[in-house]
Amino acid sequence: MKVALLGFGTVGSSVARILCDLKPDGIELSHVFNRGIGRKKADWAPPTVVWTEDFDEVLHSDTDVIVELVGGLEPAGSWVRRALEAGKSAVTGNKKLIAKDGIELDRLARSKGAHLLYGAAVAGGIPVIPGLQQGLAGDRITRIEGILNGTCNYILSRMEAGDAFADVLRDAQQLGYAEANPSEDVDGYDARAKLVILSRIALRAAIDVDSVGCRSITEVDAVDLVYARDLNCTIRQIAKAELRPDGVSATVGPMLVPLRSPFAWSRGTENMVLVSGQYGGDVVFSGHGAGGNPTAVAVVSDLISLAHGSKAADLPSRAAQVSGEFELRHYIRFIVQDRPGIVAEIAGALAAEKINIDALFQRPGYEKGNLPFVVTVEPCAASALRRAIDRIAHAGWLAQPPLDMPMLGE
Amino acid sequence: MKVALLGFGTVGSSVARILCDLKPDGIELSHVFNRGIGRKKADWAPPTVVWTEDFDEVLHSDTDVIVELVGGLEPAGSWVRRALEAGKSAVTGNKKLIAKDGIELDRLARSKGAHLLYGAAVAGGIPVIPGLQQGLAGDRITRIEGILNGTCNYILSRMEAGDAFADVLRDAQQLGYAEANPSEDVDGYDARAKLVILSRIALRAAIDVDSVGCRSITEVDAVDLVYARDLNCTIRQIAKAELRPDGVSATVGPMLVPLRSPFAWSRGTENMVLVSGQYGGDVVFSGHGAGGNPTAVAVVSDLISLAHGSKAADLPSRAAQVSGEFELRHYIRFIVQDRPGIVAEIAGALAAEKINIDALFQRPGYEKGNLPFVVTVEPCAASALRRAIDRIAHAGWLAQPPLDMPMLGE
Repeated sequence: MKVALLGFGTVGSSVARILCDLKPDGIELSHVFNRGIGRKKADWAPPTVVWTEDFDEVLHSDTDVIVELVGGLEPAGSWVRRALEAGKSAVTGNKKLIAKDGIELDRLARSKGAHLLYGAAVAGGIPVIPGLQQGLAGDRITRIEGILNGTCNYILSRMEAGDAFADVLRDAQQLGYAEANPSEDVDGYDARAKLVILSRIALRAAIDVDSVGCRSITEVDAVDLVYARDLNCTIRQIAKAELRPDGVSATVGPMLVPLRSPFAWSRGTENMVLVSGQYGGDVVFSGHGAGGNPTAVAVVSDLISLAHGSKAADLPSRAAQVSGEFELRHYIRFIVQDRPGIVAEIAGALAAEKINIDALFQRPGYEKGNLPFVVTVEPCAASALRRAIDRIAHAGWLAQPPLDMPMLGE
Repeated sequence: MKVALLGFGTVGSSVARILCDLKPDGIELSHVFNRGIGRKKADWAPPTVVWTEDFDEVLHSDTDVIVELVGGLEPAGSWVRRALEAGKSAVTGNKKLIAKDGIELDRLARSKGAHLLYGAAVAGGIPVIPGLQQGLAGDRITRIEGILNGTCNYILSRMEAGDAFADVLRDAQQLGYAEANPSEDVDGYDARAKLVILSRIALRAAIDVDSVGCRSITEVDAVDLVYARDLNCTIRQIAKAELRPDGVSATVGPMLVPLRSPFAWSRGTENMVLVSGQYGGDVVFSGHGAGGNPTAVAVVSDLISLAHGSKAADLPSRAAQVSGEFELRHYIRFIVQDRPGIVAEIAGALAAEKINIDALFQRPGYEKGNLPFVVTVEPCAASALRRAIDRIAHAGWLAQPPLDMPMLGE
């Protein structure tokens, strides 16, 4: 089986190195395609490899499989499509492309007798996709919760240890964990694409990426991690999707997780996925979800599957409507200019939406003009809470807009 | 694809129920075979199912796959062998059979164009086997550590909470977690069979079951859990195997695990498997490893794989020699009749084997004639530690034989 790499950055060169090192049976690296390929040539690669910056040269060669590691919708999507149309199989780690066009591309592959594998698109080094497709196909998965973005987990677990967001983000950028523009990670779009792919495989629900709401972790302040600790919790970026009778609930954003839950145990750039099945109960996968080598392991594993003629089970998904509704406890943090009557106003706004207050926390030691305090509420619909908060959004005593976060159970 | 169930106990009837409920494409339950089948017939099963206590009736039928859930080496082994010889595929959860004869049976299956799948043999509801075979085939796994026996985990996590071994064992028996004779579980033989299977798949090392040493968790006393806590650890039955230049190190028994490690977070009958790869780093799988439904999920998932024509990658294993040597820190607990010179004798015995003492702990409040105290030592070979302990095995001041346990890192 001849394999062409499209993209020779961190992951691409890791794939090439692992193929040279493990020499898996029946797999031969035939082409490496990259812009400015002259500067990229690696002397440790087999001399038979063709180095090219012409995609058509790859397409018209006798290579059997293309490995797309360029990322983004275009031109990567066109390359994958053209390769599949030519009857070549494709392996990709492109979560954006698979989240948006995975179903269509999979159908195209099947119609040509080819295969499309994308184990590297979600939680790279952790075998979540094969675990779900092969090992849990016999269950009915009803819920997915995951830490799907290592950058956010690095930032929040460092903030948990007392560091400030801006400092941690700068470190993450220097370490190569975060882009110069970190929006894809911190605002939740990266995790959202992965959640959409997992929903398709685990919940068998085809959902539109843009219909899933994202909340940014940039709203999380140091004081929230202090209050979270008082509640025996910490804060993680969680991607969550659940089957409902009328569709799927899905959301991505910062949430409080109990210190005793596996999510709290996840640190640094680790990824973690929890799926709940009707028969098998909860299963947790965790490990290194990103980085050159772990992602390359997922790519090489897909190549070995192809070389051995394994096929992914064709588990059909159905189009599903998305809502952002979950019945969860919530944490609401206010920063106010202290004056009498604030609690009464907040309590009134919550009561008007029939939301019960669970507890009220106010740590000492903050100045009156910039006073943080926290209200936790019993499980309620996200939309009701949003309406309650909107009722007081223009109150003169608010020094900042309030921040609300769902609280996950153990 | 017609499927015959051999064995209609807890797991067998769960498999039948899930098949009736999920109705996976292309899978039809054709036969149920069990002794005294008259008492077993289920009115909710499809009317087309043939209920039989005659294995030959199954063998000579047009059923495509047998699902062996009888357990034990015989007659289950002969049934699987005869089915494979007849060109039928087999799905089994029989860890004893697969640990002992899996390689031979797999070869037999391939020679007949049939398949042998055994996802249910290790950590039932957790997709460790497909995760390793499909998702981590592209890595070189060098180490496996796991909590592979739910009964031991239930017992030790209850003892951690302060309950006595005898009480917990009785509860486990009443709840159906432990057999009347609990030796397979508590003495480590069950976990050992699973470790041998995982070593074959993950380390690609074919090792002989009987060559792996087991230590019983019955040696663990309440006082050990108290001292473990002082060391920021708890105690779990751990199955551990590691590639070494000259073979494989493997062992099963109680070990100290740090409170901050995932193993400590595993409670009740949960199972957990950690694999370390050269490229992808550590990956952890956890979930419900036993019980009717989780195990049945693994069986049904294997059936769906077969129905979709997925093949397990044929990853070759090599015969490997087993040693019990690991360079680990150790915990050694003594119960002594207190007198001067004991510490000097112990220190001398350790020094003679060049083992460095790390710390010495003695909690107050115990009587002089039955005094527990603990020594921890720096990483040393298990064999050297065994020799050091043997040097003092006949000391008059020992009220009980000392207990040593390895201490895992974070």
